[in-house]
Amino acid sequence: MSTRRSSAEAPRGADPAPGQPRAPEELEARFTRVRAETEARCAPLVTEDYVVQSMPDASPVAWHLAHTTWFFETFVLGPHQPGFAPWRAAWGPLFNSYYVSVGPRHPRPERGLLTRPTVAEVYAYRARVDGQVRAFLDAPAGRRPEVAALVELGLQHEQQHQELILTDLHHAFSRNPLAPTYLDRAPPPSVATPLAWLARPGGLVTVGHRGGGFAFDNEGPAHRVHLEPWALASRPVSCGEYAGFMAEGGYRRAELWLSDGLAAAQAGGWEAPLYWERRDGGWWRFTLHGLRPVDPAAPVTHLSYYEADAYARWAGARLPTEAEWEQAAAGAPVEGQFVEGGVLAAVAGAGPGGTPGPASPFGGAWTWTASPYVAYPGFRPAAGAVGEYNGKFMVNQLVLRGGSCLSPRDHLRATYRNFFPPHARWQMSGIRLAR
Amino acid sequence: MSTRRSSAEAPRGADPAPGQPRAPEELEARFTRVRAETEARCAPLVTEDYVVQSMPDASPVAWHLAHTTWFFETFVLGPHQPGFAPWRAAWGPLFNSYYVSVGPRHPRPERGLLTRPTVAEVYAYRARVDGQVRAFLDAPAGRRPEVAALVELGLQHEQQHQELILTDLHHAFSRNPLAPTYLDRAPPPSVATPLAWLARPGGLVTVGHRGGGFAFDNEGPAHRVHLEPWALASRPVSCGEYAGFMAEGGYRRAELWLSDGLAAAQAGGWEAPLYWERRDGGWWRFTLHGLRPVDPAAPVTHLSYYEADAYARWAGARLPTEAEWEQAAAGAPVEGQFVEGGVLAAVAGAGPGGTPGPASPFGGAWTWTASPYVAYPGFRPAAGAVGEYNGKFMVNQLVLRGGSCLSPRDHLRATYRNFFPPHARWQMSGIRLAR
Amino acid sequence: MSTRRSSAEAPRGADPAPGQPRAPEELEARFTRVRAETEARCAPLVTEDYVVQSMPDASPVAWHLAHTTWFFETFVLGPHQPGFAPWRAAWGPLFNSYYVSVGPRHPRPERGLLTRPTVAEVYAYRARVDGQVRAFLDAPAGRRPEVAALVELGLQHEQQHQELILTDLHHAFSRNPLAPTYLDRAPPPSVATPLAWLARPGGLVTVGHRGGGFAFDNEGPAHRVHLEPWALASRPVSCGEYAGFMAEGGYRRAELWLSDGLAAAQAGGWEAPLYWERRDGGWWRFTLHGLRPVDPAAPVTHLSYYEADAYARWAGARLPTEAEWEQAAAGAPVEGQFVEGGVLAAVAGAGPGGTPGPASPFGGAWTWTASPYVAYPGFRPAAGAVGEYNGKFMVNQLVLRGGSCLSPRDHLRATYRNFFPPHARWQMSGIRLAR
Amino acid sequence: MSTRRSSAEAPRGADPAPGQPRAPEELEARFTRVRAETEARCAPLVTEDYVVQSMPDASPVAWHLAHTTWFFETFVLGPHQPGFAPWRAAWGPLFNSYYVSVGPRHPRPERGLLTRPTVAEVYAYRARVDGQVRAFLDAPAGRRPEVAALVELGLQHEQQHQELILTDLHHAFSRNPLAPTYLDRAPPPSVATPLAWLARPGGLVTVGHRGGGFAFDNEGPAHRVHLEPWALASRPVSCGEYAGFMAEGGYRRAELWLSDGLAAAQAGGWEAPLYWERRDGGWWRFTLHGLRPVDPAAPVTHLSYYEADAYARWAGARLPTEAEWEQAAAGAPVEGQFVEGGVLAAVAGAGPGGTPGPASPFGGAWTWTASPYVAYPGFRPAAGAVGEYNGKFMVNQLVLRGGSCLSPRDHLRATYRNFFPPHARWQMSGIRLAR
Repeated sequence: MSTRRSSAEAPRGADPAPGQPRAPEELEARFTRVRAETEARCAPLVTEDYVVQSMPDASPVAWHLAHTTWFFETFVLGPHQPGFAPWRAAWGPLFNSYYVSVGPRHPRPERGLLTRPTVAEVYAYRARVDGQVRAFLDAPAGRRPEVAALVELGLQHEQQHQELILTDLHHAFSRNPLAPTYLDRAPPPSVATPLAWLARPGGLVTVGHRGGGFAFDNEGPAHRVHLEPWALASRPVSCGEYAGFMAEGGYRRAELWLSDGLAAAQAGGWEAPLYWERRDGGWWRFTLHGLRPVDPAAPVTHLSYYEADAYARWAGARLPTEAEWEQAAAGAPVEGQFVEGGVLAAVAGAGPGGTPGPASPFGGAWTWTASPYVAYPGFRPAAGAVGEYNGKFMVNQLVLRGGSCLSPRDHLRATYRNFFPPHARWQMSGIRLAR
Repeated sequence: MSTRRSSAEAPRGADPAPGQPRAPEELEARFTRVRAETEARCAPLVTEDYVVQSMPDASPVAWHLAHTTWFFETFVLGPHQPGFAPWRAAWGPLFNSYYVSVGPRHPRPERGLLTRPTVAEVYAYRARVDGQVRAFLDAPAGRRPEVAALVELGLQHEQQHQELILTDLHHAFSRNPLAPTYLDRAPPPSVATPLAWLARPGGLVTVGHRGGGFAFDNEGPAHRVHLEPWALASRPVSCGEYAGFMAEGGYRRAELWLSDGLAAAQAGGWEAPLYWERRDGGWWRFTLHGLRPVDPAAPVTHLSYYEADAYARWAGARLPTEAEWEQAAAGAPVEGQFVEGGVLAAVAGAGPGGTPGPASPFGGAWTWTASPYVAYPGFRPAAGAVGEYNGKFMVNQLVLRGGSCLSPRDHLRATYRNFFPPHARWQMSGIRLAR
Repeated sequence: MSTRRSSAEAPRGADPAPGQPRAPEELEARFTRVRAETEARCAPLVTEDYVVQSMPDASPVAWHLAHTTWFFETFVLGPHQPGFAPWRAAWGPLFNSYYVSVGPRHPRPERGLLTRPTVAEVYAYRARVDGQVRAFLDAPAGRRPEVAALVELGLQHEQQHQELILTDLHHAFSRNPLAPTYLDRAPPPSVATPLAWLARPGGLVTVGHRGGGFAFDNEGPAHRVHLEPWALASRPVSCGEYAGFMAEGGYRRAELWLSDGLAAAQAGGWEAPLYWERRDGGWWRFTLHGLRPVDPAAPVTHLSYYEADAYARWAGARLPTEAEWEQAAAGAPVEGQFVEGGVLAAVAGAGPGGTPGPASPFGGAWTWTASPYVAYPGFRPAAGAVGEYNGKFMVNQLVLRGGSCLSPRDHLRATYRNFFPPHARWQMSGIRLAR
Repeated sequence: MSTRRSSAEAPRGADPAPGQPRAPEELEARFTRVRAETEARCAPLVTEDYVVQSMPDASPVAWHLAHTTWFFETFVLGPHQPGFAPWRAAWGPLFNSYYVSVGPRHPRPERGLLTRPTVAEVYAYRARVDGQVRAFLDAPAGRRPEVAALVELGLQHEQQHQELILTDLHHAFSRNPLAPTYLDRAPPPSVATPLAWLARPGGLVTVGHRGGGFAFDNEGPAHRVHLEPWALASRPVSCGEYAGFMAEGGYRRAELWLSDGLAAAQAGGWEAPLYWERRDGGWWRFTLHGLRPVDPAAPVTHLSYYEADAYARWAGARLPTEAEWEQAAAGAPVEGQFVEGGVLAAVAGAGPGGTPGPASPFGGAWTWTASPYVAYPGFRPAAGAVGEYNGKFMVNQLVLRGGSCLSPRDHLRATYRNFFPPHARWQMSGIRLAR
């Protein structure tokens, strides 16, 4: 059983230099909002939906709800509020994801066997801890910057799990032949645009987080990287383009694939992106909006790194490195398709302002980069148990950038590093070519 | 993944010569009662408990509820009621356990991924089919003997699943560190009695079902078996006796074990019966009544065949063959500890009539026999799809006899053959020695 | 990894009442002959052939040669010759197959990693121990009946390994695309004869070894079994008949198969007997005589129990029980095709004396019976470590009877019980129908 | 089964710009020498040693001998010598390692099942192809630069397999409880020296192969990388230092490990480097010189990346990146302990010229770097089938640098990139710290 964790679950270390802290009132308001948004994601669910775990890499929705709450108990209230005791001490191991230094952990593949605490109890747990955190933030002890940093970390963590709730639920629904839908309405059609190449000068660029605002520990330290001149595609690869790769035998042509990738494709019987299926002579895909015909102009998603890499080779291009991507995104506004828009499948639209133009690097679908997930030069994990967030996963994974239609907009920034193993397909992951 | 099915799930072929059929009113009353008893087993559950599947050999409670209903749709109403259509055709593959001739089947290990139909929908399904069957039994077409035989088969099948609901739930609860309880009250203490040996003459005996009443196809044909004189223990092996085997290194002494058994014990890290754990220097076991100290006088249960066999060797005895057991049970009343008593852990009581005496061969815990599960001479599976019930599982399993404290009393008889693979431990299975 | 052992490797317990012991000179001559016959089996080999282990169930030839020698050191010389020390104490664990009470054992799946001792050293080991045993048999201590019984046990054990050397080598050669041959000449053509049924009366018959001569412990005690009247096919199932089963979709028709069998067939991609392959529109099979066209009249071999069982169901018949087979073989001469004939693929000939008639129950191909391998009533394993030979394998295996074209003739008798797990296909195993 | 290939087996693409080609006579002499060196590695072996494959990642010695020969047939003679036909066409798939575009390949895990061709036949094959290549190099068609480049590629490839013959044989011998030795004499003692740090300025450095001489395709193109100032340890980590890590619970302290690494350590039961074992209260290690006490001053070897990474964290340091290592090695002479010295375990000596000083970056043990094995910017695989050498393995592996005591000296250079998956332990891999 893999014990590997992907970024999806990895709440990262606190910002060592977070710049100007938020005002306490602002933080409390944000706390209330983010916690409510998590629960809002669950509005379409029935009780049964909260319990299942469709594969070891995924977690039940109830577990996500409880784990994010345990996080505030364990890293904010426990160490900082004198006399604090967790509501149910026995729940600790159940909802400790992977923090070895905190204590024992229920085996990850058995999260789906927990019918208790019930969903109602988990919501009661959330309500109780919400009240405790809010009260604490009003108290003098809760107004210290280190507490604010940890609360912010907990909220960023919670936002990661908001996206995971959707990706894990999507996977679980996909394993049910009845094809339950999360949202009944269809996503809007995509707008087809020709692919152009945006030249970038390269040179000695700075990569990583600097200055104010929150960042995870793995986004720093900022450092210089030398780039050769390069170019980025003006938009993500579309489903129609990807279907061309498939039609030309892309999944069977060994010369297009990494050796490990071909082995994964053969072992998994891959012939199309995850969630695609043939019906009545055409391709459909199962989405959070239900089973829908593939829209050729929509960005292709739910690809492994191996597929992204093979496609790029077929297309005579390559994937960008994360330094390249960050050069392209630096200074760009965080605009695009995010979870707030309520469309939970990637859609290709027109450029900013409604006019044709290059698509935002943000939103829609995560972009696989060619960069293995490793420490930046001089990287130090955050102190304490939260130092387990990111550093210990820095092997056997690849970096993704940019966020997706399932990500909250205010969770993203140009230096954000998402990471998954190369065979992972259940995330909202796509391709943006470089050359 | 094992595709092996145990008897627990195997509704067996209809009685080829069921003797006097029940009167229609009696059958309808029995139908109503048995169906209600199944639902009564679920009274202590919350919605979440219905969904999980704690291992591929077990099934979710909601699945049991739906599968037994599908059984009446598929084998009673479908073939015999003109114009009948199943309520939801798409549910067929979900609740078809293993009837290849009926059509496709959802993969067994993925039964726990089905959050839809919801529990409420499953209950509505049951209510609808209950009404349909009752109406059908009142109609002329439903009064034919072959229909009555199939309805009776469906009820016997349902009673098997009543026991499985409890054993599977027990297993699922055992995987939750919070140790949920099904019943809060403690089981009564057992009465210790000395072990005596009841001599049996052997000779040419008849084994298998004859005459009236229901029997599964695998209980026939009746045939003669020659037995040497032998003796049966007056009662099951107790927890205290089994603890003696453990204390003398029973789990580590290779000379006591079948080779496959020792391999299973080592691979599984077995050191005690399933559900036993050490606490505060003593042994406790997790039961449907919660975590309780081991009662030395209570029958030991939740043993694999391998453990039963090794214990018998240690005790200088052996397991009975199924022919021997049947000789001992023939003519004995079906008395003992059954599910109706409301005590869901095996308890040793006094003999019939409250006086000391040999324990009934029925109830309490299933008895592993030394007999592999094979066809009786001249065995013919029932005709049609229900012929898949029993015959196709006649390899790699051992026969158990007698029923348990989780079995409905009117489901048992002396010729009843239960069967499980030798490593199975999650049933209410125990030991009755022979020599 | 399976630790299961089949009879092929299981030297069984010494005869508790072997009747008249052989005269010492006769035993020594037999010892010399049998040991030489083992080495004669290896005459066609190159050094490389001795080393490989093509699957965990098989062993390298050099290992067979050394293990059978270790057997005489460990069970004859060690306990009975005062002052005896094994030649190389460090070799003990390497060549101890599964005798837990003797001491540690090299992991079975790693027998093929042993390049030392070299093949030459193994032959030197054999020569040394041969001399020691012969000298011991000449000495007074070696003339005791218990020594003679153990030497005879060792020789019977050695004869089992003679057959295994051929079956394991056959398997190893089959994994080499160059298809090495053990014997270059073609086997003779088979004589087709119509299938007839030989009626048997049933009744109370005695099964198991009685009276004089060697038998393994699992052949006793003799006991009575009641049989219904039955009939045995006059000859084994032929390749042509089996091809009919294949042509009618036998491997895909679930209704013909045990559930475990169908799972094994699907998991293994079985579409024909082991070693069969399609070439140029026809079926060929890889034999110890090389790759040869399938002879329709030859007995079909290299079948699992599952295939034999499915074929019998397709043919409207069944497999015999071992008691039935033994009734049919009792009193019949041990005539047929054995290894001494030098034809190492099963061939169908005319009846005894060259006239048409029922084929001998002995030789050609082992007959799968419908009987699980269990202890006879009153079975006691032989005393001491040799008690591990047979008893501990009495689960999850089926009995085969009759011997094969790879068996030495003087190794067989009517009570001989061979046993393998139901999925095993690499033995010379075939079908003789009953009804 | 992993289909991943490590660099050990990966003959890399031909140098696209090899500078001045060797003179034909020089190349032929080199060909003769290198091919003979391969066979010289096998001098201590018996026939049996050539056949075994101790794990899927390793290959039998006979396979190495044949595969390297097949390489010249397939990539030199086949495409460039008119009318050439391979000696045995059927051998092609057996000795094709992973060149999908060349044709089918025997399954890698089954290389150890091939007892034919015999070792003698493999040597005859080598002799025949040696003669063919030499004759071809004398002919006009063989004197073309593209042929010379491919011959040189074949020789570099052969040198890689020379090292692999030793590492694979070492592993196979280690699985034999008799502990065969390749060399009987003991390695010399190591000289202990204090650890110092050699400061490096960082800055914009050029990485990758430029100018003349052979290089694999993955060593280019040369490109600029920006480095921060850093420091390299003056020598490799010693066994004594590593024992300190072990003594302080290094293998059990989760905070020191990558998450995947801890999982690998636990799954594999790692408590020390591969080949170490406790004897008589001290640590010994099994080497090609047999089982020897651990020399505290000797470089620690046979570590996975995970162990190297955990050790570095424990030591308050880190592993160098490959760019850093290359900066340190650039311009340094290729001096140190190589296979020509005849000591096949890493030994720590004094500095160059016999005086104390920093150890050479070359030889002794390969240095794990912190760099995942990825393409350099602008990387293009070599054209044709040899393009499969390197590029398709650029995921899930880490780069090692510097060569080892098993490497031929003239095979190494500062830009050489070796690569293995992070769990690989059977190579001569060690640690050189950075900070």
